[in-house]
Formats: sequence, C-alpha cells, structure tokens
Amino acid sequence: MDALSVANLVSFEDLSGRDVRRILDTAEDMARAIGFDGDAPPIPVAPLDRILGIVFFEPSTRTRLSFESAMLRLGGQTLGFYDAANCSVAKGETLADTIRVMSGYCDILVMRHPLSGAAKVAADAAKVPVINAGDGHREHPTQTLTDLFCIRRELKRLDGLKVGLCGDLKHGRTVHSLAPVLAQMGCEIICISPPELPMPERYMTKIQAASGTRPVETDDLQGTIADLDVLYMTRMQRERFADSAEYDKITGCFVLTPEMMEKGREQLKVLHPLPRIDEIAPEVDEDPRAAYFRQAAGGVPVRMALLALLLRLPEYDVKDKSIGLGKAPRYTEAAPEVVAPKSELQPVPGKGPCRNQQCITTTEPVEPAFVKAEDGPVICAYCEEEQTEH
Amino acid sequence: MDALSVANLVSFEDLSGRDVRRILDTAEDMARAIGFDGDAPPIPVAPLDRILGIVFFEPSTRTRLSFESAMLRLGGQTLGFYDAANCSVAKGETLADTIRVMSGYCDILVMRHPLSGAAKVAADAAKVPVINAGDGHREHPTQTLTDLFCIRRELKRLDGLKVGLCGDLKHGRTVHSLAPVLAQMGCEIICISPPELPMPERYMTKIQAASGTRPVETDDLQGTIADLDVLYMTRMQRERFADSAEYDKITGCFVLTPEMMEKGREQLKVLHPLPRIDEIAPEVDEDPRAAYFRQAAGGVPVRMALLALLLRLPEYDVKDKSIGLGKAPRYTEAAPEVVAPKSELQPVPGKGPCRNQQCITTTEPVEPAFVKAEDGPVICAYCEEEQTEH
Amino acid sequence: MDALSVANLVSFEDLSGRDVRRILDTAEDMARAIGFDGDAPPIPVAPLDRILGIVFFEPSTRTRLSFESAMLRLGGQTLGFYDAANCSVAKGETLADTIRVMSGYCDILVMRHPLSGAAKVAADAAKVPVINAGDGHREHPTQTLTDLFCIRRELKRLDGLKVGLCGDLKHGRTVHSLAPVLAQMGCEIICISPPELPMPERYMTKIQAASGTRPVETDDLQGTIADLDVLYMTRMQRERFADSAEYDKITGCFVLTPEMMEKGREQLKVLHPLPRIDEIAPEVDEDPRAAYFRQAAGGVPVRMALLALLLRLPEYDVKDKSIGLGKAPRYTEAAPEVVAPKSELQPVPGKGPCRNQQCITTTEPVEPAFVKAEDGPVICAYCEEEQTEH
Repeated sequence: MDALSVANLVSFEDLSGRDVRRILDTAEDMARAIGFDGDAPPIPVAPLDRILGIVFFEPSTRTRLSFESAMLRLGGQTLGFYDAANCSVAKGETLADTIRVMSGYCDILVMRHPLSGAAKVAADAAKVPVINAGDGHREHPTQTLTDLFCIRRELKRLDGLKVGLCGDLKHGRTVHSLAPVLAQMGCEIICISPPELPMPERYMTKIQAASGTRPVETDDLQGTIADLDVLYMTRMQRERFADSAEYDKITGCFVLTPEMMEKGREQLKVLHPLPRIDEIAPEVDEDPRAAYFRQAAGGVPVRMALLALLLRLPEYDVKDKSIGLGKAPRYTEAAPEVVAPKSELQPVPGKGPCRNQQCITTTEPVEPAFVKAEDGPVICAYCEEEQTEH
Repeated sequence: MDALSVANLVSFEDLSGRDVRRILDTAEDMARAIGFDGDAPPIPVAPLDRILGIVFFEPSTRTRLSFESAMLRLGGQTLGFYDAANCSVAKGETLADTIRVMSGYCDILVMRHPLSGAAKVAADAAKVPVINAGDGHREHPTQTLTDLFCIRRELKRLDGLKVGLCGDLKHGRTVHSLAPVLAQMGCEIICISPPELPMPERYMTKIQAASGTRPVETDDLQGTIADLDVLYMTRMQRERFADSAEYDKITGCFVLTPEMMEKGREQLKVLHPLPRIDEIAPEVDEDPRAAYFRQAAGGVPVRMALLALLLRLPEYDVKDKSIGLGKAPRYTEAAPEVVAPKSELQPVPGKGPCRNQQCITTTEPVEPAFVKAEDGPVICAYCEEEQTEH
Repeated sequence: MDALSVANLVSFEDLSGRDVRRILDTAEDMARAIGFDGDAPPIPVAPLDRILGIVFFEPSTRTRLSFESAMLRLGGQTLGFYDAANCSVAKGETLADTIRVMSGYCDILVMRHPLSGAAKVAADAAKVPVINAGDGHREHPTQTLTDLFCIRRELKRLDGLKVGLCGDLKHGRTVHSLAPVLAQMGCEIICISPPELPMPERYMTKIQAASGTRPVETDDLQGTIADLDVLYMTRMQRERFADSAEYDKITGCFVLTPEMMEKGREQLKVLHPLPRIDEIAPEVDEDPRAAYFRQAAGGVPVRMALLALLLRLPEYDVKDKSIGLGKAPRYTEAAPEVVAPKSELQPVPGKGPCRNQQCITTTEPVEPAFVKAEDGPVICAYCEEEQTEH
C-alpha cells in the first residue's frame, strides 16, 4: 500500500489529488471488506494491535463514534477523552504537552479542538500521526472525504456533475469545504439559498478560481431541482432568525418534500451532512435517491482507509489480514493530480500576534508565524486567517 | 444455533416460551465458557468482529457495564454514548434518525431512553437488532431474564416454587415484570409489603390471570419466610416517605437479618436486583443462601446469550469459536410454550394523540397508533398505555 | 512467570524488594515487546480474553488512559466508569457492594477514590485483584513504580544516585512516596525548595530512617544542579500563594531553564510527574537529558507488567503470546530484598472511630480497626493515619 504524501491530516488542502484518489479507492476496498452494501458475507477482520487515541477538547459524539467504529472495524482499539473538563489542560497544561503524553499511549490520534490552528500545533508536537476532526470554525477534512466518497459511489464519477447546494449557505461549513473541491474536479456549482443566507464572497471566489466560473445563485429550489445530479441540503438553524415566524416563512421554500422530488431526475442524489431537522421531510427517506443515510454510513470505510494509510499498514491488503479484498471499482472521474493546488507559501518575518482571537496562538506558547503566497495576503501559519490592517 | 422468533428484544412479552428457554439454555453454555462457577479453566474466546452500540439517552452505569462485559466476553467490541447531553438529539434530531445513523456504526444496538415506547420506534428505524434496556417506566427485559436465570440455576427449576416478593411492591418495577412470568410458569406468588406500598391492582390482576390464583398479601416477613423457596427483596427508598422516622418505623420489619434467615429453609434463595441500601443486613452476605451477587454476575452470561442469538452467530458452538462448550444442564421446569400469551392485537383506527405524556409519540414524528385485544381496552401501540376516556 | 507476593496492589509498601524488581524487569520485557524504544519492529500482540475494570470515583484522565493503554497493549479489554456521578453509589450503595458487582464484570480492577483507605476496602470485597490508582491524599503506587522504571532505564541503576527533589516539596505527593524508596535503595536525597514549601518533617524522618542520613535542604537549585544524577521537578501551584506577584517572586528561582541545564552533568536526567506548568521552560524539552516525556510513556510498560503479574498470566513469556521477548537487561542496582520493611503490625483492640475525617471508615459500614508496630504509634488499619490523643 503506497503511503500518502502527508504524515498527518491537518487540512484537506494538504492532500494531493493522488492522495484523495488513494483514500477513496482504499475506502472502496474497506467497504467491500465490511460488507457495506450488504451483499457479500464479509471475511472476519483479524485483530490489529494498534490504538487510536481520541483527543476531543469539545464534544462531537457522531464524529467520535464514526472514528471509533472505523478503528474497531480495522481490528484495532480506541481510548481517549471526549471533552476538556477533566483533563490536564484544566490544570494549565499546554496542548503540545497533552499531545506528547497521549502519543505515548496510542499509535495515531484524532483531535477536535475549539481553536483554529490547534491541529497544526498537535501535528507538530505528536510522535504519531494526527487527524484533524475539526479545529475552530473550520470543517474537518474527513467530512469532505466522506462527501466525495458518497457522490462517487452514487453517481460513479466526480467530474462534470451539476451540484446544487441548498439551505443556509452562509453558515454551512460543510459546503464551504466541499464546493471548491468539487469545482476543482470539474463540477458545476449552483447556490440555492434565501437571500439572507448566501454563500460568502470568500467561498464564491474560491469556487470561481477553481472552476473558472462564478456559481449561479438562486432562491428557487423548486425551479432548479430538475437540472441537478446532486442536491446537497444543509441545516437551517432556527436560532439564526429573529423569530420563529420569520424562520418558518423563509425556510418553507427550502424544505425538500416528496412533491419536489417528483421534479428531480432519476439519477438525482440527495445528500445532507446530518443531523437534519425540518429541511427534509421524513417521507423523502423512502425515496431511493435519498442518499444521506448511506452518506453517513460511508464515513466508516472512509475513516478506515485514512487510518490504514496513515498507520502505513503495509500488509493490509494481503490475505492474512483479511481486509482489502481485491481492487476498487472503475470510476470515470477525471482525477486532477492536485485537488486544490496551494501556491508555494513564503514565510513573512516580524509580525505581531495573530489578529484572530480564536487562533491557537492566543493560548499556546508557540511563536506566531505568518506566510504569504505570491500576490496573496499575509495569513497566519496556524489558523490561516488573513492579517489585514486594522 | 436456532434463531429466536424475534429480531429485536423490545418487550419481554414478545418472547415465546421457546425463546426464553433457548436464551436461558444458551446462557448456561456461556456461563460454562467463561468459567462462571470458577471450577473449569475457560477456553480462550476468539475475537469476534461485531460491534455493540450503546445508545443510552439517560445514564444507567450498571446496565451499561453488564452489556459491555457480555459483548467483550463474546470477543466483540463496544462503542456508544451514555447520556443525551452531547449527541445530535440535543440539536433536534429525531430518535429514528439517530438510530439509523448508529446502525451504520454497529452490528447490534442496546438502548435506554426516558420515554415509553422509544424502544419500538428504535426497532422500527434500525437496520440492526435493537435490545431494550429500559424505556420510560417499564422494566427492561434483560433484568427479567437475569432473574429467571438466577432462580433456575439456584433451584434447578422454575415451576412450582413459592416466591415471596418483599419490600416496596408499589414502585418496584423489577417485581412488576417478574411476578406475572413466574406465575405463568407455575410458581405461587406471595406479596410481602407494608400496607402503604402494596402490589398495584394492575399487576395483581396480571398475576391472577397467569396463575389462576390471586396472590396472598401480607406484611409479616418474619412469619412467611419459613415457607419460601425464593425471597425476592426490593429497595425501599427513603425519599418515598414523609420523614426519616416514618421510614425507619415502616421499613424496620422488612429488613432481612441473620436472625430472620434462621427461620428460612435450607433451599431458600434470597435475590435482590441491587443496589441494596438498608433492606438486607451486610451480615446476610456470608449466608450461602444469599444469591444476589451471583444474580448480578449472571447478567453477563444472559446478555452474552441474547447478543449471540440476536446476532445469529451460527457457528458459535463449534470448536474454532471456542465458546458454547457442550450442552446446557437438565432442568425440571415445565416450560410453557408461550410465557405470556398475547391475544392477537387488532389495529384501532382514528384515535387522537396518546394520553400518556411520557409516550415517545409526544416528541417523535410518528403517527400515533392504537391496538386492542378482543374484549381488551384500547392501548397505544408504542407505550401500551390504556386509552381510557378522560 | 513467578507470582508477586501480593494479590492486590493497595500500597507500595506492601511490595517486597523482590516484587519491585520483578515488576521492573517484566516492564522491560513489555517495553521491548511494544517497541518502546522505537528500534525493533514489535511482534503483534495476541488477543487476551481478560477485562480490566476502571472504577474511578473521581476523574483522573491521564491515570485512566495509561491503564487503558497498558491493558489494550496486552491484548485485553477495558470497561468502567470515570466518576461517581451516575453510578449506584449515588443511590446509597456501599463501596464494597459496588466492587462486588464490578468483580462479576471484569478480571481485574483499578480504582481511584477520594477517601483514604478505600483501596483496602475494595481489595477486601473484590473477588478479583485490585490496583490502587489513588485513594485520598496518598500517592498511587504505580506512579512510584513508573518513576523507578524511568530512573533505572535512564541511569542503568537505582542505587548510589544523587537525587535532587525540587519545587513544592510540602504538597508534592509524588516525591513523598518516591524519596523514602530511593533512600532505602541507597540514593542520596537533596531537598530543593522555597523555605515556605519544605519537605514535611514526617517524610524527612522516613527518608532518614531509610538511608541513615537526614537529607540536605537548600533553596539554591542553581548551586546544586551540578552535583545531581537526577533532578526531580514538581509542580508549583499558583493557587497556593497569596497573590500572583508572590508566586512569581518565589517560583522564579525554581524554574529550570536551558541556562541552568548548562551547569548540569552530562549524565543528569530531569524527571517531572507532569502536567508541568511553568517550572520547566519549553526549550529544555529538546535537551536529551529531559526525560519527563519518556517517564510518562514508561507508565504503559510498567502497568502492563503489573497487570500481567497480578492476572498471573503464566504463559505470557512464551512464544504463542508474542510478548515478553527474551530477558531484561542487566542493571547494577543493589536490590534490597525488602524495599521498605514494615515492622510486624499488631491489632489494637477497642478504639473508637478513626480521627481522619477523610478515612473510608467514616462512610463505609466497616468496623474501624487499628494497628501498631512495636514502639510505633497506633494507626488506622485503613487510612494509616496516626491516632494521637486530641
């Protein structure tokens, strides 16, 4: 099994296009090994003497459980803590020290942290691979991988698809991460949202840079659904609105119902990062085009693949390990060799503290560091926030 | 290994008499495999690539740990959450959605929930078997199975026993479940309680229906103990009484002491669902007739059996799995083919919401449904509460 | 594998010198088996069908995780609870009952409890071995074993070393336990602390009794470091001082910096029980003489050794278990046959309750019991507090 080009997974953008394809292909092997599609009786997984450390400084039950399931399905074990209340951090220990000690108990770590850039601090300190399951406001890369895995399985390709993103695009972190990647892969993005909750300009620019076209924006789900290959629904949060009546009025047109589904094509697939509240009527669940529960379940083989690749389990596709049965299916996507090509970042000397109050450098005793791409703005090397004058 | 007649364990009454006997016999195999009686060195359990998901919407540490121990003793693994505080339910997700997602992480689920009927909603939504570990005010079926397992082991039969139930029979949910089952199996039930805390009429009727005789009621433990084969003690909760003096006065006669034990027969066995507070003096623990700690430990082989049967582990008694060593011992009980024969329930159309404020239909978007047996009252299909006029 | 002389580990002082050596030697085997030094690829650990029960009545995340890691590295499994909030103790159950029930779910227990003497109550009640991970104010014995393991690995012996203990020696429970043991083994102890935070007289007496010499006391870390083989740093807690300025003034001279390290010998090793706050500058971490992260990691093989020995895994060093590869390295320490020879304790009849308000006998229904050594004071048999007149 060829190694990934990275030793940790801090940010999706660290992955090369080859890395992404390798993870998705390995996830297909894993899906087959665990009988994901329910067809073939799986071969028993052999025990694996590797431990995944769960290092969650804020709770995220579902993310945690999908990682735990993945590690157990690989035959390995897990341990960890699920919020910061009782750990040594409460006594004033630095994140770096906590991570160094945890490195002594485990073979790989998955971390969630409330501050941006915390995953970079952890990866720098750890002696074992670190996977970012969310630091601060940024989406975690395994969610994006899970979305790609689902779309590729459901539609047999990742390029040339018409993808509608629907709902609260202003706050929906999942779509902020996914949209530029899909654009880069050759998909057309359509933004479907109330005018009050548009895709932020920052991401519009990113999508345009990746695909060459600025996404269409509309508030008409009803009129758009017939064109789509993928409809990616997001949660609209009642607490974002002044009152409940306002919420009901605005969100009404963005609720997916069986009637709307009648307008959709046969090959349409509906995704949702879950939990869903009111934005998809429960009756849609029975529609075979509703892919969101399969999407959630796909998080397990995707995370199995990532764990196996970062642990560099060399023998994982040979017989005595009983996993990785055969080869991945053929997909037609044009695989860009680099998903989101980062321009070479140059260090910028002599700046003060990061201006982002939610940056890990505000609490951790690391030297603030700044970088810039050619023609780009100066950004923090940890949280990647732009350091504009203020 | 023959399958059970049910795919889930929602209610004890769903089990046929054959199911109960199969679970208890398999539990004997499991007890032997894990060296439960301390006599034979157990053969190592082979790893089992199955995951038990613990889905506890309210805490119950002991129930959780006995299920975890059972799954680990089978060679399997566990994951889950232990209260609802941090899970997606807090964000407004339905129980059905949570269960569907958890189904993707596990091979079998055990659930505890504060609302009645929640186990039925979960079983309907899950793609894997669901075990009810308590929903709302109802006792969970694995406690009843554990009690039966203990009595059968200790007395070598389940029929024709004189069983005294002692303590707070008004609130003791364990005895509410157990008594009708034992009556059905041919045991004589004696209710021993303060007049303030009698067995509710509802359960008196059930016991009488099952055995043909109305149980004797008495407040004289001292005068009754000499007749008993089984004395099932229950907890008296100080908070149910006006003041501590009242509590001490009333409960004094219902505390089992070494002096009272002297009046009991040699074959008497004392059970208690634990935790016990003051109702059994610690000195009784040394008496070989005190079976309550063996009763608690028996929860592990019983739950191993239930997990193995619901997972339909077909090869579990063959050699390469190293468990299920030989055959169960001979017991003399008359095994009624159906434990608590449910009359055929007919749907009742067109009723409004369930009148039980603790019913899962009050929070979950499921259609309320009602059923009735011939000549019986209309009951909720979820929580089984009677829908009397109000 | 020869058994230890004890069935439980309640107190470090219960261990004979031979026990300590056996644990440390076995820990070396374990370190080799898990590739602790990173040199040799470890042989896979075979699954072990044994369960460690974690019974923590107060949280201690790091202690818990190091035990969990150790049990998983042995191939075994863990379950348990991590604070007392939701367990049956909250319903009024005695510690002894909780332990008896937990004994039915596990093969060995590790317990942490806020009251002194709780570990003795647990060991008396349990049917499986019990390891004390801290009860009340006393340090837990596996921390002391971990410290010894680290010193022996780093310096190839345990006798004849000059060991400086530095920081808040008044409250530092770790050094209270470690210093008498090292003194007994032939080390010279130097106490380096602010005059406000000296080693308590009680431990000064113990150290002197063990080594024959009263330790030197100084507040001059700078002037002492050049003489030391081991510098054991401890945490200074800001909350012990009247104000922050006072804290900064006093602690300033006890912060280990790269400049101070320059004065230290080449063979000097710096230890710290962690978490560290300000008392060691982060730059010292890069110094190869900084042993504290290796010390923390060493807790895993030490606890593996202890678990394996208390579980009496007889075949643990044979080939089919794939652990314990070969023999421990040669060390030069003079191994005293008994580490801290306890004089024979005689029961003292007829005393009232223990005078220690933090003693487990204040809440648990056990008969208070007192003992005394020849010429020694009367002490509680549970918490070992002296029962002076008052």
